[in-house]
Amino acid sequence: MAIDKKEVSSWFKELQNDICAKLEKLDGKAAFGTDEWNREDGGGGITRIIETGALIEKGGVNFSEVHGKVPENMLETLEIDQDSTENSTFFATGVSIVLHPNNPMMPIIHMNIRYLEICDKDSISSNWFGGGIDLSPHYIFKEDARGFHQMLKETCDRHDKGYYPTFKKWADDYFYIKHRNETRGVGGIFFDRLSETKESSIDSLFAFVKDVGAVFFPIYEQLANRRRNEEYSDNELNWQALRRGRYTEFNLIYDRGTKFGLETGGRVESILMSLPPQSKWTYNHSPPDGSPEDITLKQLRKNIDWISPD
Amino acid sequence: MAIDKKEVSSWFKELQNDICAKLEKLDGKAAFGTDEWNREDGGGGITRIIETGALIEKGGVNFSEVHGKVPENMLETLEIDQDSTENSTFFATGVSIVLHPNNPMMPIIHMNIRYLEICDKDSISSNWFGGGIDLSPHYIFKEDARGFHQMLKETCDRHDKGYYPTFKKWADDYFYIKHRNETRGVGGIFFDRLSETKESSIDSLFAFVKDVGAVFFPIYEQLANRRRNEEYSDNELNWQALRRGRYTEFNLIYDRGTKFGLETGGRVESILMSLPPQSKWTYNHSPPDGSPEDITLKQLRKNIDWISPD
Repeated sequence: MAIDKKEVSSWFKELQNDICAKLEKLDGKAAFGTDEWNREDGGGGITRIIETGALIEKGGVNFSEVHGKVPENMLETLEIDQDSTENSTFFATGVSIVLHPNNPMMPIIHMNIRYLEICDKDSISSNWFGGGIDLSPHYIFKEDARGFHQMLKETCDRHDKGYYPTFKKWADDYFYIKHRNETRGVGGIFFDRLSETKESSIDSLFAFVKDVGAVFFPIYEQLANRRRNEEYSDNELNWQALRRGRYTEFNLIYDRGTKFGLETGGRVESILMSLPPQSKWTYNHSPPDGSPEDITLKQLRKNIDWISPD
Repeated sequence: MAIDKKEVSSWFKELQNDICAKLEKLDGKAAFGTDEWNREDGGGGITRIIETGALIEKGGVNFSEVHGKVPENMLETLEIDQDSTENSTFFATGVSIVLHPNNPMMPIIHMNIRYLEICDKDSISSNWFGGGIDLSPHYIFKEDARGFHQMLKETCDRHDKGYYPTFKKWADDYFYIKHRNETRGVGGIFFDRLSETKESSIDSLFAFVKDVGAVFFPIYEQLANRRRNEEYSDNELNWQALRRGRYTEFNLIYDRGTKFGLETGGRVESILMSLPPQSKWTYNHSPPDGSPEDITLKQLRKNIDWISPD
């Protein structure tokens, strides 16, 4: 299960650079700011934020590589069974992206890929990859959801035919706002703790994760080119603000990365870059029957086959 | 420790009516809507919401009285040590208020009073009162904070000289946004699990809780008369939206009532009425040194003596 962790973090860092450069070009107006930060107990990160762009109202592309002695609550939070952490160290690196577009016809997109390694007395006791991409449209366009899932399926299929169905279901279950009985959006893929097995070496898992990272920009570019110039009015902006409220609910109540980050003293502004530029809550809001908002709401369900609908 | 629980819930319900009537008059423009709801396993509530008023942009005054078999996760959530819940029933009633004003110079106010009773085979195994009032100003005015705390202290002192210092500290510790190292506002009082002791009968505790409920409107009226016509511009509205973002973070991440309600399948729209009409998140926002926003931020700290400042 050995892998050069520095190679992983270097690739992640390059991906951040590459995606930021491409997003700036796609946006055409705003540029990413750069904040480098250090973690007191080892490592740090680069937070890159774009605001008030032509396409993106608020977005972040984060890279981090943190390491050091295993913090007290880390193993418990990760549910790792290990007697003592006295001689344990960890290494975690990842890229996280959330983009909130101006145009309500464009979806919110999220991508994350990560690698974690725990060492006991200098030898790896466990290591794995995790990640995912998911789409939260303010208005669901079936052709967009289909195209999105198709691209994810192709990416997965190149590595393992079992990946897409498993990781698609995982996304449905993970990106779920339980108290609303609503999915956050049309899902995507989510996977965690992909460790080496007889069937897949750690290198082949890294190759898969690289492919997930690489497909992010083409997916977003396609959506942007299709939706960025759609017309909208105050009604659609109002709905967008309400859907952003749901996104906020998910991230603050359920998202494990957010929770883990805030509880373990991560950099607050980097973690909460995922929150929308603004959100709205109107008591008991219910869109008129048959309206585009109502049709969207009714499709925020688990287990929809977006690629081959009935 | 016997108390007529129906007397408690009747008083709470009357308080809701009384406060709504007075708030409508104070607002002068908007009226409260009324939603009655039933809990499948026993009891229900009345949610009263006011929106787009002259004074109040969004506010809720909730009453509930729920009862029935003790739900599975309830004792665990309440950390009650009891072998079996097979023959256990509960009764919970309360009033909750959150008001978000239009004018950024007016504070957000929150009040809650509640009574809980757990019965084992028809006899009370535990019962207590809880509650509190706290103020979250977008801009801190020291004279407002002083007047507010003074009124709370007078209310407490009429019952027990030890209440105010204890419950004031409890509020500082409870209404605290840990990941920001900020209090939610200037605090107030918070208390929980006030059970009968040798010193205080359950009736005297009820009398105290009634006084907390009764002081809510005079407090709010005084603040409204002082601040509702203050001038403000887009700059202050922007800051208000950012502070509302912090309020959202507190309620969704830390508030026990919100968490308990959402986890135990409470009525979502009644629970989340506490959320602001809208919120804003700007990456790494930092007000200019010495600005009113900066001065407010620096006072969002625990253990400030608002009544007799140094």
